Amino acid sequence: MADVTIWNEYRHEREDDDVAAVYPDGIHATIADALDDGGDERDDGPDHEIRTATLDDPEHGLPPDVLEETDVLLWWGHEAHDEVSEAVVDRVQQRVLEGMGLVVLHSGHYSKVFKRLMGTTCSLQYREDGGTERLWVVDPGHPIADGLDESIELPRTEMYGEPFDVPEPDRLVFTSWFEGGEVFRSGCCYRRGSGRIFYFRPGHEEYPIYEHEDVRRVLRNAVDWATPTEGAPRTFGERD
Amino acid sequence: MADVTIWNEYRHEREDDDVAAVYPDGIHATIADALDDGGDERDDGPDHEIRTATLDDPEHGLPPDVLEETDVLLWWGHEAHDEVSEAVVDRVQQRVLEGMGLVVLHSGHYSKVFKRLMGTTCSLQYREDGGTERLWVVDPGHPIADGLDESIELPRTEMYGEPFDVPEPDRLVFTSWFEGGEVFRSGCCYRRGSGRIFYFRPGHEEYPIYEHEDVRRVLRNAVDWATPTEGAPRTFGERD
Amino acid sequence: MADVTIWNEYRHEREDDDVAAVYPDGIHATIADALDDGGDERDDGPDHEIRTATLDDPEHGLPPDVLEETDVLLWWGHEAHDEVSEAVVDRVQQRVLEGMGLVVLHSGHYSKVFKRLMGTTCSLQYREDGGTERLWVVDPGHPIADGLDESIELPRTEMYGEPFDVPEPDRLVFTSWFEGGEVFRSGCCYRRGSGRIFYFRPGHEEYPIYEHEDVRRVLRNAVDWATPTEGAPRTFGERD
Amino acid sequence: MADVTIWNEYRHEREDDDVAAVYPDGIHATIADALDDGGDERDDGPDHEIRTATLDDPEHGLPPDVLEETDVLLWWGHEAHDEVSEAVVDRVQQRVLEGMGLVVLHSGHYSKVFKRLMGTTCSLQYREDGGTERLWVVDPGHPIADGLDESIELPRTEMYGEPFDVPEPDRLVFTSWFEGGEVFRSGCCYRRGSGRIFYFRPGHEEYPIYEHEDVRRVLRNAVDWATPTEGAPRTFGERD
Repeated sequence: MADVTIWNEYRHEREDDDVAAVYPDGIHATIADALDDGGDERDDGPDHEIRTATLDDPEHGLPPDVLEETDVLLWWGHEAHDEVSEAVVDRVQQRVLEGMGLVVLHSGHYSKVFKRLMGTTCSLQYREDGGTERLWVVDPGHPIADGLDESIELPRTEMYGEPFDVPEPDRLVFTSWFEGGEVFRSGCCYRRGSGRIFYFRPGHEEYPIYEHEDVRRVLRNAVDWATPTEGAPRTFGERD
Repeated sequence: MADVTIWNEYRHEREDDDVAAVYPDGIHATIADALDDGGDERDDGPDHEIRTATLDDPEHGLPPDVLEETDVLLWWGHEAHDEVSEAVVDRVQQRVLEGMGLVVLHSGHYSKVFKRLMGTTCSLQYREDGGTERLWVVDPGHPIADGLDESIELPRTEMYGEPFDVPEPDRLVFTSWFEGGEVFRSGCCYRRGSGRIFYFRPGHEEYPIYEHEDVRRVLRNAVDWATPTEGAPRTFGERD
Repeated sequence: MADVTIWNEYRHEREDDDVAAVYPDGIHATIADALDDGGDERDDGPDHEIRTATLDDPEHGLPPDVLEETDVLLWWGHEAHDEVSEAVVDRVQQRVLEGMGLVVLHSGHYSKVFKRLMGTTCSLQYREDGGTERLWVVDPGHPIADGLDESIELPRTEMYGEPFDVPEPDRLVFTSWFEGGEVFRSGCCYRRGSGRIFYFRPGHEEYPIYEHEDVRRVLRNAVDWATPTEGAPRTFGERD
Repeated sequence: MADVTIWNEYRHEREDDDVAAVYPDGIHATIADALDDGGDERDDGPDHEIRTATLDDPEHGLPPDVLEETDVLLWWGHEAHDEVSEAVVDRVQQRVLEGMGLVVLHSGHYSKVFKRLMGTTCSLQYREDGGTERLWVVDPGHPIADGLDESIELPRTEMYGEPFDVPEPDRLVFTSWFEGGEVFRSGCCYRRGSGRIFYFRPGHEEYPIYEHEDVRRVLRNAVDWATPTEGAPRTFGERD
C-alpha cells in the first residue's frame, strides 16, 4: 500500500462539455477509482491511500508536506503546463530524486516536471484522428505488464508518433501501433536519483481511456512498481 | 574503408525459382552491390574491400584467416541454421568480442551466432502475408539513420512481431509498423566485448528488399558504424 | 517468500582443509543460513523455501522438476565449471528466460550458465593477495542496496579487476575499490527474457565472506529482487 | 575536423596565483593546445577549428551564431556556475538536442548546462587531498579509450567519490580508484536528442591535469566521438 497523489490540471473537464461528459468528476477521480479497484484478483484490502491535487488548488495542491508524504505522484496536464510554478517543479524534482515515484500520463509528456527530469524537449508527433491504438507488450517480464495479454487495444484515441525526444528509456515496456501508420514508445521506465519514473501514453481527455480495464491495470501496476524502496544513503558533499 | 565479409546461407536462391528470380546471384551478391554503391553522395572511392562466404563453402567460407582479416561480418541465414558448425560459431563470437563488427539480417535472428552473442532465444512472432512495413527512425541522431527520412516504407514483406526475445538493445534505431497490426524493434544496436552488433530486420528472400534504396543505405551506414575502432587493451588473467 | 535453490560446486570444501575450516558444511549451507536469517529487521516469518544442490548430485541436483519449482537459483562454482553438463546449462538458461531469477556469485562469473546468458567470455583480472575490498553503493535507490550503508568493507579477500568482459549492466549497484589499486563492477543487474540476473562479486572460498552481515543482507535483497513477477505472455511463432 | 568551442569560467586563473602558475593562459588555452596536439600518431593536419569563450565575455562568449557553428562544446566551470545566464543554458541545451557534442569537465558536473541535460542534482562526494587517482578503462572497445593503456594514473588530484547523482550512463568508459579509498564513475557517455555528451572527471585547477598526455588524448578522443553525424530529421508537431 502506497500513499498516492493524483495530480490533474482539471481544466478541460470544467471548460468543455464533451470532456465533462467523459470525465464528469475530473480525470483524477477516474484514476483514483482505477487505483482503488481490486477487481483484478487483488484481494489485499484497500490498495492505496489516495489523494488528489489540481492546478487551481493553492500551490497546485502540492505543498511540501503533501509531497513529503507522497510515495507515488501521477501527473496529467495538457493546456496549462506553463501555469505550473517553478517552485512546485523544483519540489517535485527533488522528491523524485529522493525516491518518490512519478507516473506521467499522456499529454503530461510536455509538463514542466517531465521535461525537467528528462533534460530534453519531450516533443513528439500527433494527430487527433480518433483512430485505433494497439499497445504491444515488448517486455513481457516487466512487472508493469503483470496480468496483461500480449497487447492492449484502444478503439478510438489520439495518435502520438515518433520521434519522441526523450532519453533512451531504461526499459521499454510498451510500443504502440496506430491505425494511421505510426508507432510510439508508449510505456517508458526511467530511474532518476532514487526515484522511479514511468511515462504511459494513453489518456486523451475526449475518450474514456481511463475506464479501459487494461489501462487501469497498468496504472495499478505502475504505482506498485514506482513505490519507493528503502535503499542506501544518498550522502553528498565533502568527506573527511 | 573496411574489410567486409558477407555471409549468406545461399540455399533458397539455388532451390527455389521464385527466390532465384529475385536474387539470381544470391542475396550476398545483392548486398555486396549495395555496400559498394556510392550513389548516395558518397564520393570517397571504393567503399570497402568485400568478400562473400556461404554455408556450403569449406568451413562455411569462414576459416580463421578470413575472420582475422574481417572488420565487419554480415550474416543472412534461414533454413539451415543448424548446419553451421560450433567451431565457426566459436570463432565468430571470439572475433566479435575482439572488435569485429557484426550485422545480422532478417531471419539471421535465429542464427547460432546471434543466439550465442545474445544469450536468449531470439524468438519472435511472424506472418508471411506480404503486407506493408514502415520502419520508423526512433533515434534520429544515430549514425545508422544518416541520410534517411523519418521512415522507410517497404510495400510487401513478411511480418515480424513482438515480443522479440533479445536483451534490451543498447540503442534502438528503428521500430517497425506492420499493416496487419503489429510492431517490431527492427534496428537494434549492441556492444559485446569490443564488437558492435546491429540487428536489422528487413530482408525476406521472396521480396527484393535489398534493392530498396533506403535499405541499402542502412546497410552501408551499419557497416560504417560497426567498423572497429582502436580501443584500449583487453588484458585478462592473473595480475602481479 | 520464494522457492530458492542454492547451487554449489562443493569441491573445495571437501578437498582443502583451509576451506573446510571456513565453510565446514559447504558454502551452500552458509548461504542457506544467510537467506534464512531475518536478523536485519525482517519479521515476516520464514523467509524462503530453501533447497541446495551440488555438482556431484545426480544431474547436479538440478533435474527439470527442481528447476521448475525454483523461483531463484544461486550459483557458486570455481574449479569444475567444465564438469557441468550442457543439458543442465540448457535447462537453467531456459528457466531464466521464462522468469527464474539467477544470482551468480564470485568465481561463478566463469560458469557455463553465466557465460551462456551473457554471450561473452566473462573474463577479468585477479590477484589472490588477501587485501581489503570496499564495495561502494553507486545506485543507492536500488532495492539490492536496501538497508546498507554507503559501502561494505571486506578486510581480506581476493582481488578482481577490470576489464570485466560482460555486457554493460542494465544497472550497476556496486563498484569495488581494492587496496592494491584496482576497481571492479561488483554488483551487476541484467534482464534476460523474463528472468532477473544479479552478479555479485564477494565470496572467495578461503575467507568467511558469506558470514559478513552486509554480504548476507545483499544476498537476501538479491533473492527478493530476482523473484519472478507475473508478467504478460511470452508467445512466439506464427501468427494468424 | 570539427568546429570546437572551449568554454572556461576563467576566474581561478585570474584570482589565484597558485592556479595561474599551473594554467598561466587559462585552462581553456591548455585544452586548446591539447586538442591541437597531433603528437599521438595523428597526422591528418590541423585537427580542429578551435575557439574559446569565457564567462566574462559578452553572452559568456556563446551568442547564437557561435553555438550554431560549434560542433563540440567543452565546458569547465567551478566557482561561478550561478552566474551563467538561463538564456545561454537554454541555447546550449537546444543545440545539444540538435546534435552538438558536449564534453563536461571535472567541476563542470555542477554546471547549469549539465544539470539541465541530466535532470538530476549531479552531486557527489569530494576531498581535496592531493592523492593519487587511477582511471581504469572499463570499456576497452570504446573510441574514447583509443590508444590508452589499461589505466591512466594521475599522481596528485582532488578526490570525487560515489554516489554520483546522474542518470545511469549509456556507456561507462572509465571508473576511478582513489588512494583514499573511494571510487567514481569518471567517464560517462550520454545521448540527449541527437547530441552526444561525455562527462570526464579529471581537471582540478591546482594540478596540471590537462598537461597529462593520456588526459589530452582522452580530450581529443572525446571531441572526435562527440562530433555530430548527419542523422535523420527530427520532425515534431501535428501530422496530417
